[in-house]
Amino acid sequence: MTNITVFGTGSWGTALANVLADNDHNVLMWGKTEETINEINTEHSNNKYLKNITINETIKATLDLKDAVHHASIFVIAVPTKAIREVTSHISEVADGKKMFLHVSKGIEPKTFKRISEMIFESIDPKINGGISVLSGPSHAEEVAIKHPTTVSVSSENDEVAKLAQDLFMTDYFRVYTNNDLIGIEIGGALKNIIALAAGITDGLNYGDNAKAALITRGLAEITRLGVKMGADPMTFLGLGGIGDLIVTCTSVHSRNWKCGNMLGKGATLNEALEEMNMVVEGVRTTEAAYYLAQEYNVEMPITSGLYRVLFEDYPVEEGVKDLMGRDKKSENI
Amino acid sequence: MTNITVFGTGSWGTALANVLADNDHNVLMWGKTEETINEINTEHSNNKYLKNITINETIKATLDLKDAVHHASIFVIAVPTKAIREVTSHISEVADGKKMFLHVSKGIEPKTFKRISEMIFESIDPKINGGISVLSGPSHAEEVAIKHPTTVSVSSENDEVAKLAQDLFMTDYFRVYTNNDLIGIEIGGALKNIIALAAGITDGLNYGDNAKAALITRGLAEITRLGVKMGADPMTFLGLGGIGDLIVTCTSVHSRNWKCGNMLGKGATLNEALEEMNMVVEGVRTTEAAYYLAQEYNVEMPITSGLYRVLFEDYPVEEGVKDLMGRDKKSENI
Repeated sequence: MTNITVFGTGSWGTALANVLADNDHNVLMWGKTEETINEINTEHSNNKYLKNITINETIKATLDLKDAVHHASIFVIAVPTKAIREVTSHISEVADGKKMFLHVSKGIEPKTFKRISEMIFESIDPKINGGISVLSGPSHAEEVAIKHPTTVSVSSENDEVAKLAQDLFMTDYFRVYTNNDLIGIEIGGALKNIIALAAGITDGLNYGDNAKAALITRGLAEITRLGVKMGADPMTFLGLGGIGDLIVTCTSVHSRNWKCGNMLGKGATLNEALEEMNMVVEGVRTTEAAYYLAQEYNVEMPITSGLYRVLFEDYPVEEGVKDLMGRDKKSENI
Repeated sequence: MTNITVFGTGSWGTALANVLADNDHNVLMWGKTEETINEINTEHSNNKYLKNITINETIKATLDLKDAVHHASIFVIAVPTKAIREVTSHISEVADGKKMFLHVSKGIEPKTFKRISEMIFESIDPKINGGISVLSGPSHAEEVAIKHPTTVSVSSENDEVAKLAQDLFMTDYFRVYTNNDLIGIEIGGALKNIIALAAGITDGLNYGDNAKAALITRGLAEITRLGVKMGADPMTFLGLGGIGDLIVTCTSVHSRNWKCGNMLGKGATLNEALEEMNMVVEGVRTTEAAYYLAQEYNVEMPITSGLYRVLFEDYPVEEGVKDLMGRDKKSENI
């Protein structure tokens, strides 16, 4: 039994806290919303984020960051990309001793184009850094919560940290693979949202299964090209944090990014789609980041560039698809 | 304008003949069924295989193998795996001069475990061998026939042969990439049917999107392991003939292999499922071939082995899934 604190009380943080408690770990959740914290402590549920799920009764929740930090040496960071720096720097202020940070977020920081592990690294005191890792893979929280078979990979620059995380999470319904390519896993997790947006567009245009599979495959190829230039291992994109996560995001109608793309394919403008969604669509910001990263690293990313024009320059979606199909003859070999 | 003969009048052969005719090539189709040949010549349709599609009126069809062979130096071989040796050896008997063979079939020969290009190579006189290539990728014939955007790759041991095929087929709705890994493309195309069967099973068990994405990803990993031992480039499996074709086959309810697996997941025996299908389910024979290939090449293929037990040894499907989830802790790195 290990003490673990999960920061964030959204659907994914809650589902993962449950996996850890099922493995007999002593889990404390930290969040900012009093109502949610009380509901977890008294009702053993979190209906705003995971409907009709009973959370393991051993899980406690707190609003107090100090209590949360002092509870454990192992932290699961399950807050949105935009809250990463704030939460981890506050943790750092009250922490003493080495702490291990496992994050489960997907995104790239706007403007700096930093990966999430880099944001954490920069936000915490080096003295408390006991290792930074990421958990990623094809994993709808709703399915993990009802204990459907799920696989993920955990990656860290330090193999021992990844193995420890594997030990903590692995159950008979939640299978964890280690992976030694932190950059590849983080790039794959962030950039999949671009392709999910584009997949929503082709589905909105009713272009069929061939077009969508082409988009996923060629999307993966351009993500891989960028990832490799940034230092990733190309084989990572064949894995759970690469193609696995991409498939689940592009083929599920529950994906926010797919939904937004679908509206665009059916003729909505970006503003109309975002207004109707009334939620953050991470892929829109990631498209912008990847568009600039492609230029910085001098990588050809035709799907990302086409989507950028559609999103930010009012380019018609049908023309975007025509451009992709009408490019020069290419070899598939990267 | 180039003379081309398409051997086979099934849905894929017909759709590809149409692509070639749309590119202004002079296409003759050869088949064994008089009714189909007459329908193509007089009605410009092939309703048994491609419902409600008007075929390009320049396409002619013949029952006469000699006419078919003498019409062209470029042959598209679109017959089932089990007819490959018979058709190509008959072609060889009447051919003079070099002929290029582009095949579009997916499978492995039972017992010999040969790939299709190897079967063709062995069946024809070396004197007429003007190059053997394969066309593969995510491509439902029905969608190509209505000119929805589709991408494929063409692979040959000879780059010039692949480039020629790319030139012949490429249109504004049918995008062709060249690829120099014949082994990888053929192994990917054949073994995807195993994973489609297994994906049908998890869907039949209602295990959800996470489980299916895991199966596709880890299925691709074991196909890649085997392919690499057989001489393939691992990057091929990231491409259209690898993950692209796998996605379209595993996520389409029209796939015969998925349908068969789905019945198994819902509790049918293999015999019951095959009887209800009343069609060849290529994945069943491919599972047997891959099971033996895995032993021959000493490659761990847990999904294939589990499926083999379910198909041929009456092993319960739920137990098969449990075995997969309960394996030793692994690294994702191949």
